[in-house]
Amino acid sequence: MKQQAHDALHRGLDRHVRLAVTGLRRAGKTAFITGLIEQLLHANEGAALGFFDVVREGRLVASQLTPSPQWQIPRFKYEQAIEALCGQPSRWPESTNSLSQIRLTLRYQPTGHWYSRWLSYRDLTLDIVDYPGEWLLDLPLLSLDYEAWSQQQSTLLERPEREQHAQAWLQSIRSELASEHSADESIRRIAEQYQLFLAACRDQSQLCFLQPGRMLMPGELAGAPALHFFPWPQQFSCPEHWQRLLVKRYQHYQQQVIKPFYQSYFSHFNRQVILVDLLDALQAGEQAFADRQEALAALLESFSYGENHWLRRLFSARIERVALVATKADQVPPNQHHALAELLRQLLLDKRRQWQFDNVPHEVFSVASLAATSAGEVDGQQVVQGVDENGQTRRVAPSALPQSTPMAQQWQKGFQYLRFAPNFSRQQIPLPHQRLDKVLQYLVGDKLT
Amino acid sequence: MKQQAHDALHRGLDRHVRLAVTGLRRAGKTAFITGLIEQLLHANEGAALGFFDVVREGRLVASQLTPSPQWQIPRFKYEQAIEALCGQPSRWPESTNSLSQIRLTLRYQPTGHWYSRWLSYRDLTLDIVDYPGEWLLDLPLLSLDYEAWSQQQSTLLERPEREQHAQAWLQSIRSELASEHSADESIRRIAEQYQLFLAACRDQSQLCFLQPGRMLMPGELAGAPALHFFPWPQQFSCPEHWQRLLVKRYQHYQQQVIKPFYQSYFSHFNRQVILVDLLDALQAGEQAFADRQEALAALLESFSYGENHWLRRLFSARIERVALVATKADQVPPNQHHALAELLRQLLLDKRRQWQFDNVPHEVFSVASLAATSAGEVDGQQVVQGVDENGQTRRVAPSALPQSTPMAQQWQKGFQYLRFAPNFSRQQIPLPHQRLDKVLQYLVGDKLT
Repeated sequence: MKQQAHDALHRGLDRHVRLAVTGLRRAGKTAFITGLIEQLLHANEGAALGFFDVVREGRLVASQLTPSPQWQIPRFKYEQAIEALCGQPSRWPESTNSLSQIRLTLRYQPTGHWYSRWLSYRDLTLDIVDYPGEWLLDLPLLSLDYEAWSQQQSTLLERPEREQHAQAWLQSIRSELASEHSADESIRRIAEQYQLFLAACRDQSQLCFLQPGRMLMPGELAGAPALHFFPWPQQFSCPEHWQRLLVKRYQHYQQQVIKPFYQSYFSHFNRQVILVDLLDALQAGEQAFADRQEALAALLESFSYGENHWLRRLFSARIERVALVATKADQVPPNQHHALAELLRQLLLDKRRQWQFDNVPHEVFSVASLAATSAGEVDGQQVVQGVDENGQTRRVAPSALPQSTPMAQQWQKGFQYLRFAPNFSRQQIPLPHQRLDKVLQYLVGDKLT
Repeated sequence: MKQQAHDALHRGLDRHVRLAVTGLRRAGKTAFITGLIEQLLHANEGAALGFFDVVREGRLVASQLTPSPQWQIPRFKYEQAIEALCGQPSRWPESTNSLSQIRLTLRYQPTGHWYSRWLSYRDLTLDIVDYPGEWLLDLPLLSLDYEAWSQQQSTLLERPEREQHAQAWLQSIRSELASEHSADESIRRIAEQYQLFLAACRDQSQLCFLQPGRMLMPGELAGAPALHFFPWPQQFSCPEHWQRLLVKRYQHYQQQVIKPFYQSYFSHFNRQVILVDLLDALQAGEQAFADRQEALAALLESFSYGENHWLRRLFSARIERVALVATKADQVPPNQHHALAELLRQLLLDKRRQWQFDNVPHEVFSVASLAATSAGEVDGQQVVQGVDENGQTRRVAPSALPQSTPMAQQWQKGFQYLRFAPNFSRQQIPLPHQRLDKVLQYLVGDKLT
């Protein structure tokens, strides 16, 4: 009887956090989630989690991976990631390009509530959902009609880093305009060229702000008419019957591809992490940096809803906290970690002002999800040390971080960061990290009191 | 006014055939559909379609590819297939492992109806849907519970060609039984080994009768708990809490994976083609041949419904005609084509008797969808001639076909057939075929009168 009452009370007080983790390609999603799980599972085995209250106060009883009731969603491959990291040789885990999910249950002793003395513990269920940030880049399409989107894309097309890849696509428009193919066939052929154009922008010029996002990750839509459209370049005039079909396809994409995605996944989250690899962006140079900044702004649109924003009305989104995280901090010495977070803060200044106005709670962090370097000093200069991809020990003094978007002069000089290889083994449990405890405290700390 | 009345009448008389094409891996699905489209598109440009009434009688006005209204389903890659076949060098088109669809509109003059003199033409819409036959192998699971399925699979496991691949999987059961992992974790680990076992059976022993089919073609379910189950081998005793989870997963697979597939696709078809590569099966040897025969029988279960069969009640299936087609007939001389169809007829004797009883209309054919050889005679022996994969001209006298399942003696001798390479060019339009006209007449001829 007493046990039953206990259980009932206990169930009623259980909590559930659905944490979405996203970021553009290679932002470090897999490493971040792996690191987070690793720290939680080994929180009581020497994990360095001084800023995670529930651990510091000795109230975390245990964490464990528990089955998710959503059987149709792929499970995040935590075990495989650890196997790769601790293998011989140690490797970075495979990055994923689709949705996955994993569930942890955190058992803890509550504190400070009137009922805490009746409870020996409480459970918090933490679902971590991993998905490509590129899927969010399509959100702005919901507020643009086909014509406005075409205009926007035509402007982007004037930039040399895009223009150079666009020639075959533009040529296909010219030749289809002169052909006797049906509208359906011509548009399909041109869309195939547009897809190649997007892939070239991504693979050859490291661009990220590419729409429609599903063309680059089609999944089960590969080859489907739903993806047979493209923005119309202003330099050509569009035959009326083509225009009709293009508009219909665009609207189909808005209603049948973008909206269902938001409705089925996005609207269920209550906490969000957005990962940014600023060091790689700096190293990629001025154009790629600007592109990534734009892509990031478009991605953040998804969370820019005030009380009356159309997004909130459409999906009843209710993200309570957003963590903006600069990753791979271990590529620079500890005395630059603050500058790394500061740079991210600077880059997102406009967006963050709007969020403050709209009351979207957010915070900025810099972390190393899986720290692969150690810090040192050579001739009074701070350096980082680790192994490179060939297994050679390297000690480098990386470029100093700019305080905001670099000037022309700084771009000329360029930025150099070494992507270290992992060098872990099973003896190091839990794997080392930097500042994941601060992120954990922000994301779930309030639910563990 | 007259035009409107014409249009309305015309619309009302339009017909729609949804033709599903399937077969086990490498049965020749892509070549068959490509050949079918090729003949229809060029029916009035010298296609050899003497047994296709609407063409022989000069009533086919024109055929063309028309847009499908189902934008979320990938389009069958006809143009790419032709490009591969007529390329330099000529290649077989890529085989596909998922669903695709293409639509043709056949415009023809009707004959023999009271209204035909008011109509100059009528249109028949032909949707051709291509899907892996392996998806149908899961259908029998709907009528088996977990225990019965496990028993069936345990029996199959006794065969040496399966047993040899099963050791790592069986070992994983032993070690998980001894471990302290949770049921969820143990079952996931064992299921991963079971998946490797299925892949080995397919890739190393050319087996086809492998369940659950989605484990080998998971698509968006890759890594999802929905696929974390396996048949329980009778040699071990199953812990009760494992058993509960396995049964639940199995039932989830039945209800959430198998049924929705049948409901959304299968139930819309009204004509069905099943392709069988008998020559490859013979060449693969006794065990692989027996396995393919079993897989074929399981696949044909999908169409074995009488008026009161549970399948019909479940999916309101209403396939009106089934064409059973032995493919790649051009690998044997014309004097053996009849024997090829006869062998297929023999192998399906039991099933066909049941179909006759249940009134499932069906017919057996042997075809070459894209004929890559010519016939000749050397020393009074019939031979086929074509080029091999190295571009060398080859003239061979293939093994004579058995009249039914071969005897031990015949297996000992073995069967040899040469897989010729294509050798086409754009000058050969339409590409050559053998007996596709008979298949066309059977599948759509009745709708074109």
